[in-house]
Amino acid sequence: MSACEELREYVREIAEIHSAVALGAWDQRTHMPERGAEARAKVLGRLERMAFERVVSDRMGELLAAAERDGVCSEVDQALIRVWKREHTRNRAVPPALYQKFVETTSRAETVWEKAKAASDFALFRPHLAEVVDLVREMAKLIGYRESPYDALLDEYEPGMTVAALRPLLGSLRERLVAFLKELSRGKPPRELPAGTYPLDAQKRFCRETLTWIGYDFQAGRLDDSAHPFTIGIGLGDVRVTNRYQDDDPFPGLFGALHEGGHALYGQGNDPELAWTGLAGGASFGIHESQSRFWENQIGRSLPFWRYAHPHLVRHFPGLARAKPEDVWRHVNRVEPSLIRVEADEVTYNLHICLRFELEVDLVEGRLEVDELPARWNRAMADYLGVTPPDDARGVLQDVHWSGGMFGYFPSYTLGNLYAAQIADAAERAIPGLWAKVEAGEFAPIRGWLWEEVHRHGRVFLPEDLVRRVTGSGLGAEPFLHYIRRKYGEVYGLSGP
Amino acid sequence: MSACEELREYVREIAEIHSAVALGAWDQRTHMPERGAEARAKVLGRLERMAFERVVSDRMGELLAAAERDGVCSEVDQALIRVWKREHTRNRAVPPALYQKFVETTSRAETVWEKAKAASDFALFRPHLAEVVDLVREMAKLIGYRESPYDALLDEYEPGMTVAALRPLLGSLRERLVAFLKELSRGKPPRELPAGTYPLDAQKRFCRETLTWIGYDFQAGRLDDSAHPFTIGIGLGDVRVTNRYQDDDPFPGLFGALHEGGHALYGQGNDPELAWTGLAGGASFGIHESQSRFWENQIGRSLPFWRYAHPHLVRHFPGLARAKPEDVWRHVNRVEPSLIRVEADEVTYNLHICLRFELEVDLVEGRLEVDELPARWNRAMADYLGVTPPDDARGVLQDVHWSGGMFGYFPSYTLGNLYAAQIADAAERAIPGLWAKVEAGEFAPIRGWLWEEVHRHGRVFLPEDLVRRVTGSGLGAEPFLHYIRRKYGEVYGLSGP
Repeated sequence: MSACEELREYVREIAEIHSAVALGAWDQRTHMPERGAEARAKVLGRLERMAFERVVSDRMGELLAAAERDGVCSEVDQALIRVWKREHTRNRAVPPALYQKFVETTSRAETVWEKAKAASDFALFRPHLAEVVDLVREMAKLIGYRESPYDALLDEYEPGMTVAALRPLLGSLRERLVAFLKELSRGKPPRELPAGTYPLDAQKRFCRETLTWIGYDFQAGRLDDSAHPFTIGIGLGDVRVTNRYQDDDPFPGLFGALHEGGHALYGQGNDPELAWTGLAGGASFGIHESQSRFWENQIGRSLPFWRYAHPHLVRHFPGLARAKPEDVWRHVNRVEPSLIRVEADEVTYNLHICLRFELEVDLVEGRLEVDELPARWNRAMADYLGVTPPDDARGVLQDVHWSGGMFGYFPSYTLGNLYAAQIADAAERAIPGLWAKVEAGEFAPIRGWLWEEVHRHGRVFLPEDLVRRVTGSGLGAEPFLHYIRRKYGEVYGLSGP
Repeated sequence: MSACEELREYVREIAEIHSAVALGAWDQRTHMPERGAEARAKVLGRLERMAFERVVSDRMGELLAAAERDGVCSEVDQALIRVWKREHTRNRAVPPALYQKFVETTSRAETVWEKAKAASDFALFRPHLAEVVDLVREMAKLIGYRESPYDALLDEYEPGMTVAALRPLLGSLRERLVAFLKELSRGKPPRELPAGTYPLDAQKRFCRETLTWIGYDFQAGRLDDSAHPFTIGIGLGDVRVTNRYQDDDPFPGLFGALHEGGHALYGQGNDPELAWTGLAGGASFGIHESQSRFWENQIGRSLPFWRYAHPHLVRHFPGLARAKPEDVWRHVNRVEPSLIRVEADEVTYNLHICLRFELEVDLVEGRLEVDELPARWNRAMADYLGVTPPDDARGVLQDVHWSGGMFGYFPSYTLGNLYAAQIADAAERAIPGLWAKVEAGEFAPIRGWLWEEVHRHGRVFLPEDLVRRVTGSGLGAEPFLHYIRRKYGEVYGLSGP
């Protein structure tokens, strides 16, 4: 057996344990009876620990060293070594006692955060957040970085990404979006569709249909309800999505399904050869998000899509019969600066992220105290979006991420939006008559192209390399800004882009 | 830490892995998309192997020896040692290569059995069954026994049970049931209720209600659909049931729910202290079956039950409004000798089991060749039940058990029926006005008594000891025979018992 083959054998067990963890997590959020929660937490903790022990083991170190010495590996084997070396190194860098403290502190902080958010009481959350920030900074130091401790955190979600690269990118994006928002405010806002009641059963049927259009394979997955929509890869041939619905509005459910469907196509499209190697999944959180945003926004919020989807929408919801395809398209492309990230539209969404990124970097680099967060938050909201949170629940306390210590995660959302626009441009160039196909409901060529260019590769390429392979250029904000100006200029009747 | 505490710590990991296996198995049969099957098999295989390695490890042997040396254990700790020593010894007795061969041979045999049953072609199955029997005999020899190799197999399902104890018990049961069947044939068969259509949704609602009556806790479990009904304990606070339904008959679904509900009450009633020790579950397969049969037959097929359940039945199925409680009771207590075990009534069911037991013992003890099975089967069917299978599909090929190497399992079904009657007698003695309570829908006292006497103890007592504690006497067929004669004598209008 070659060193790479031995490594593959070894990591297969870890991947199989991860599959059991994924099933437990899926069940926890969809089917588990409430009194089973404590036992489930114990079982998942045990399985995760068993996987962790294998990741950080001396044996793993030896196998990685041997595989590197061999040096005659395929592209996939090189990725195998890269991915597991990163896991091994990052996880060994943090001593078990410190990691244990991190798990306990964040678990407590999350519980307190829930209460603090409910009471809109930042002071309650403040000491816990301060503890989390201290631990995150300590862990960043141990993991190591060249320029900014935040780089050590970013790397977990977007391998290779740095503050040095992100700061100018997001800074310029922010300025231009703020300027564009001002332009839009002089335009003519689209008319909203009349309110109505949309039975959940009909919504679910419509979502299932929509997932089938874009190529989601129900023989290799399923759609369930959950409090927060998510996609989870349980194993080869089993990538599940969940969704939620509002009975007064069919669109959050529909776009939720398209979003999760985009994630799921990625997972279902992984080359089966990558199963059990740790290379199944996505190149990064940002690239994964690009796939969800591609289907949700680039396709799902396009006029050709609604020309196709309109009769189906009306079939499920006859109350919408009088709305034309263009009306629906305008309705789902309204822009309104608002307080809550998860409810934000395409134009303002990234401003919520820019704000969080700036605060996170300052916290982690030690230029900002936790005490100062609410004031900084509210000032930035006013500057970027022109709205001021009336309380911390609708401001600095709105997201769960910080309580869980997930610093470095937020940028993935904006990276996803930027990548999605770049990928959509590349798809337009590669697929003749792309929009005519969308209008005809022919999604297979698009799905096929994404499969060939993105999905099948899983985690084989670093995000930077993948984007360059697919689009011919590196990460940039121009395609996204161009897309936004063009579409929303039209929706809001602005004069030429 | 005492030796017993160390042993508990060690087996906790095994129990937690088993919980992950149980969840995977539940999902496999209820929700898993079909293309995920292969991956799931691999993951479950891996987890089972990880648990197995811990069970047979030298470390386990040392911990058991140390705990035994200590000798100052509680009743529960004594059971802990007993149960794990049995697992350790049985599993170490069979060399991994032989066990591997057993897994492969039975897996192949099961596939061939499916085809052979579909084609009613015993010759196709014969060589595979012969291989399985040889392997089972070899394993029995390695596991060890005093009198019969079949005892080594029985012990897996009913610890302590032997051929020497079973043979006279089942022999006499068989003779008396055959005689009673003759008596019944001179009685007046009850009228069947008219045919109808019973919407599955209404059936499911009725089953959920019925499960709630008997005390099944939906906050610690759930009811799903599956091809074959089953109950599975996933962990503390999570014991799930599944069921299936026929749209032309509401009773198979209802009795299926009561049967699985009986199993599930046992699991939900285990003392929480037994969680993660390997002592949760039931004292044996036979005792577990007694709990399902108790609710399905002793309670669910009683006249007081139908006096209570009747208006609810009619509410869900208005088409049955003209049937009186007594009519329903008679309808669900019809007796008809038939070819298929799983469709058999209470009186004839055990004859199917007696037949299988006799054949199994003769095969395992080497007095019967696989070639002779169909002839022996058909002759016994004619002798015991007065029916002759027109083909092997409805005869010797009907059950999956032998292809899977599960020799020694069948007796559990009859033991369950016998224990259930003994336990029902004890319940009648212990709970004043038991049948009036059933008629009033007051099931809580019965459930509470079962909890106190049976459920909470899990696997702490050997089945023989448990039955003696609960009923004051050992296993016997009299209470069952008395119950059968009394009820069916009444249903069939025979003169006095």
